[in-house]
Amino acid sequence: MDLNQLRDSIDDIDSQILSLFMKRMDLCKGVAEYKKIHNMPVFQGGREQQIIHRIKDLTNDPNLENGTAALFTNIMDISKILQNRQLLSRGTEYSYTAPDFSGASRIGCQGTSGANSETAAKLLFGNKQPVFYRTFEDVFAAVQSGDVDYGVLPVHNSTAGSVNSTYDLMTKYSVYIVSEAIVEINHCLAAKSIIPVDKVSRVFSHPQAIAQCCDFLTGNALKTAEYGNTATAAAMVAESDPDDCFAAICSVDCANMLGLHIIAENIADCSLNRTRFVCIARNMQVMPESDAISVMLTIPHTEGSLYRLLTKFYVNGMNLLRIESRPIKDGSFDAVFYLDFSGTIDDPNVKALMNDLAENLEYFRFLGTYKSN
Amino acid sequence: MDLNQLRDSIDDIDSQILSLFMKRMDLCKGVAEYKKIHNMPVFQGGREQQIIHRIKDLTNDPNLENGTAALFTNIMDISKILQNRQLLSRGTEYSYTAPDFSGASRIGCQGTSGANSETAAKLLFGNKQPVFYRTFEDVFAAVQSGDVDYGVLPVHNSTAGSVNSTYDLMTKYSVYIVSEAIVEINHCLAAKSIIPVDKVSRVFSHPQAIAQCCDFLTGNALKTAEYGNTATAAAMVAESDPDDCFAAICSVDCANMLGLHIIAENIADCSLNRTRFVCIARNMQVMPESDAISVMLTIPHTEGSLYRLLTKFYVNGMNLLRIESRPIKDGSFDAVFYLDFSGTIDDPNVKALMNDLAENLEYFRFLGTYKSN
Repeated sequence: MDLNQLRDSIDDIDSQILSLFMKRMDLCKGVAEYKKIHNMPVFQGGREQQIIHRIKDLTNDPNLENGTAALFTNIMDISKILQNRQLLSRGTEYSYTAPDFSGASRIGCQGTSGANSETAAKLLFGNKQPVFYRTFEDVFAAVQSGDVDYGVLPVHNSTAGSVNSTYDLMTKYSVYIVSEAIVEINHCLAAKSIIPVDKVSRVFSHPQAIAQCCDFLTGNALKTAEYGNTATAAAMVAESDPDDCFAAICSVDCANMLGLHIIAENIADCSLNRTRFVCIARNMQVMPESDAISVMLTIPHTEGSLYRLLTKFYVNGMNLLRIESRPIKDGSFDAVFYLDFSGTIDDPNVKALMNDLAENLEYFRFLGTYKSN
Repeated sequence: MDLNQLRDSIDDIDSQILSLFMKRMDLCKGVAEYKKIHNMPVFQGGREQQIIHRIKDLTNDPNLENGTAALFTNIMDISKILQNRQLLSRGTEYSYTAPDFSGASRIGCQGTSGANSETAAKLLFGNKQPVFYRTFEDVFAAVQSGDVDYGVLPVHNSTAGSVNSTYDLMTKYSVYIVSEAIVEINHCLAAKSIIPVDKVSRVFSHPQAIAQCCDFLTGNALKTAEYGNTATAAAMVAESDPDDCFAAICSVDCANMLGLHIIAENIADCSLNRTRFVCIARNMQVMPESDAISVMLTIPHTEGSLYRLLTKFYVNGMNLLRIESRPIKDGSFDAVFYLDFSGTIDDPNVKALMNDLAENLEYFRFLGTYKSN
């Protein structure tokens, strides 16, 4: 056979497989109806295993068994997802309002004035002055209790990775993500007087900022000390004795505000250093232009469970923007997953996916929807 | 039809799909041979898209199009994986030796004596005293240069999540993971004299330890200050004025070693608090009992690329133990993935999978194999 003949034969086989798949879906619908009439449980685990065993037996080549088993698991999963779609996309109506950023009177941030959270808050709320809290958890508590209308917290830095505490606190407080902001961070080395970098005795900053400037710090053999945040480190340096030759890693804005001298600029390992902040609220709020959704879930500790979870996203046409697995806080390494994906809350496919996840996973939480940057 | 008739019909359809899938594989083999004879490129992207378009057209129901497209992407992926398996599992012979932990003369850790890294090193090397380095990167550099035989570094804590810097340094240094150790960490609050917890003026420790004891610290309204590691924080407290009422979060061993008083024990948020350490070496070394493999890779920024990556693991029967995505250090949020999975390096399926990944991904690195705990 030449190439065109081979390809025609493949197309012919594909048409046959497609029509068999459709017939199979109809028969499965028949099974579901039969079970409903006879009050039988919808899901019978043994039947699925039976089908996979049968396929493995029929395959007749031990080298191909894993592949054909995977194919038929997939056929059954896709068939179930498509079948449930109409059912699952009905019935869920989310109640929400649009966020009112201009009317918000109180905004909470962690740290002190001059911290990057303040820059993120200004991107979202203009020149409103945020209230500062000592810890991330204090900000969550203030949002939940209604002490502030919105909280602004970092979740992801392009150099140093995810900010764990914000993710962990999402499991503890029932708040919603309503917006995100990306802040470009220009780290500088700031000191009380104009001194050469090699005269600096110690550099103070937040551990994430130190991590982000690792190449600069080790290249200049600078000693470091960790501080709660970049702005308090800078404030300490501003109050220190110039003879101590202390320096802080902080933003240019912060150094200027405190009257510190910038002795090295753009010292982060890569020139483009961005931190992602989320804005959280007590209730679900949706902007008309929201196009990304964050969820949190756990999956069973069985072979292929992540794969089969992603089948649900794939079949519903949802594009994953980010996936993070975090160990569950009970000491085991079992994971809770954070997934961000493209989609709008009123799309029937999104509703079907979310209802499917909520019904079939041990733990599932919708974290919010927002306009992705 | 009754339930048994419906199920028999489904079984019959499955047999037909299976035999069509096998015929399809044969035809694809024919295409590959034809291309080889005629010196044509193996992969022609347009053809795959053409098949998917055709399937969508034939589906005749816009609600099902995503599902049938997913099914046929999957059919093509599985077929390719199975076809390449025999080819890809040949030819790669890894050269390696077994690690010699008892003969190792120099072991590197970050921090100071009394740090948890030392406990991990002792689990692996018995009572050999490790050499301590100031930073994680110093340990990597010492392993790469041959200054030490092995380095022991934390990668994952069950409460506070992954230790970012170790993962990031794996991209920078060409070293191999040869073993892992899990250390159970019992955090305590230690002070210079016996004082009640509410008299403590400030608690010093590593940011991870502070994060792990967050509930205890906020519950007792204790102020914190971050320190490079738990052992140096404890050493500072040991040298402080008792009237300052400073305390440190450190291990019980460390407090005892420095003669500090334990004023609260087991203060971590969950009683079971485990940190995973890896042992790294300059060359690939494999213990006979190694059963887990770590790899690092990037995937294209296209729809479903993670899903299609996991298809390769699933079809080859590899069970994922862990997945972490970390942003690439160029300021974008594109991700590099760290995957741990069950398998042995000499298994032909593992070889096939690794060769497939190495050939088809822009970036792929084998990080090592070890006995999982």
